[in-house]
Amino acid sequence: MTPGTIYGVGLGPGDPELMSVRADRLLRQARNVAFFRKAGRPGQARGIVEGLLPQGVVELPMEYPVTTEIPVTDPRYNQILSGFYADWTARLRQVAEAGEDVVVLCEGDPFFYGSFMHLYTRLEGLVPLQVVPAITGMSGAWTATGQPMTWGDDVLTVLMGTLPEADLTRHMAESDALVVMKVGRNIERVRRALHATGRLETAWLVEYATMADEKAVKLTDVEGYVPSYFSIVLVHGQGRRP
Amino acid sequence: MTPGTIYGVGLGPGDPELMSVRADRLLRQARNVAFFRKAGRPGQARGIVEGLLPQGVVELPMEYPVTTEIPVTDPRYNQILSGFYADWTARLRQVAEAGEDVVVLCEGDPFFYGSFMHLYTRLEGLVPLQVVPAITGMSGAWTATGQPMTWGDDVLTVLMGTLPEADLTRHMAESDALVVMKVGRNIERVRRALHATGRLETAWLVEYATMADEKAVKLTDVEGYVPSYFSIVLVHGQGRRP
Repeated sequence: MTPGTIYGVGLGPGDPELMSVRADRLLRQARNVAFFRKAGRPGQARGIVEGLLPQGVVELPMEYPVTTEIPVTDPRYNQILSGFYADWTARLRQVAEAGEDVVVLCEGDPFFYGSFMHLYTRLEGLVPLQVVPAITGMSGAWTATGQPMTWGDDVLTVLMGTLPEADLTRHMAESDALVVMKVGRNIERVRRALHATGRLETAWLVEYATMADEKAVKLTDVEGYVPSYFSIVLVHGQGRRP
Repeated sequence: MTPGTIYGVGLGPGDPELMSVRADRLLRQARNVAFFRKAGRPGQARGIVEGLLPQGVVELPMEYPVTTEIPVTDPRYNQILSGFYADWTARLRQVAEAGEDVVVLCEGDPFFYGSFMHLYTRLEGLVPLQVVPAITGMSGAWTATGQPMTWGDDVLTVLMGTLPEADLTRHMAESDALVVMKVGRNIERVRRALHATGRLETAWLVEYATMADEKAVKLTDVEGYVPSYFSIVLVHGQGRRP
């Protein structure tokens, strides 16, 4: 029996027309589609592909056993998630070894802060794997601002809003262009770090980039606002331009 | 007369199947297509869309008046390029004002270190503009290595190989994951900075990512090799993973 291939397919920032031609083709031919979601929710990735999947496709929702109920610093968090990924590794491997391809839906780009990576590293060497890169959420976000992001020799730094304030401040002070992901409830810490490094006045907040409810505003225009977890804060570079 | 729209359309890293569904659609309907190229060359962007453009499309090759003949630090460099962008701004504006749409082909993502940005900022407010984001060259490159790029709270820094060695070293020492673009003849300086920060052993060199002649190797396996200008050096993050 020739094993099937497990495809990690990036869906891009959210607008279905911004997925790649290859992603679109793989989805329209899919027989098995797996996707992460929070228990009891339809799932963001599954929403993006609505209307694209063929009749009779087998859907495999991979429901996170924990999201924000346990802090990531608690040892149980790692233990529970590790078991979850091991379980789904075994289940997807079984489908592939029965000769069937599986498309795993990935928000954004699969190898850029994605959940699929935890399956990928466990499946490597066991079954055929392919990764389809995609437009990142941050590309969607800077496009939404209507301003070019990086010029000439600009240094771009990508930071998670979950980092300690001192780390945020140190990196912001060193970089030309900035992307801060996973902002959500970390917004006040992000604001303080931007203020401390003189970047607050030029910072943008982007939510739901490329989607129907896209919102791109100057951060100083929404003081006190707590955005969704997947919001992005940006500071554009100002490098060399003829 | 309703003016036409000028579309800055990202083509992604090189494989035509990795452009977005929207880019593919706009190209197949295009009446005017403009693209940058070095004089006397067919042009990298034009090559990616070969076979996609409809019959009768008007092609507008925008030939750089200078590439590496004059150093970017020479004041003439800025002056010559500035005139070039002003000239093409006027020409594209004229096409749009005659009621025709223009698709400007952009390698990678238009707002990420792209040439189109120089037209975009000059055309803003004069004619309707739309930007279609795309998969970046760096996404294509990290996908080619077969290893996830960033995990958990990893800090990613994007650097140009044209930066002074001290700047490269300082940023490399501070970051978890690294992307160095525009490597080419700057390779030895990039190597020295990686060595000084203990990152050389884990660095990858990627050329022509996602294209027929894709090459992804450990940097230590190709000592002395001088890659093409658009090659990318990567160091993967090693962040939290359950």
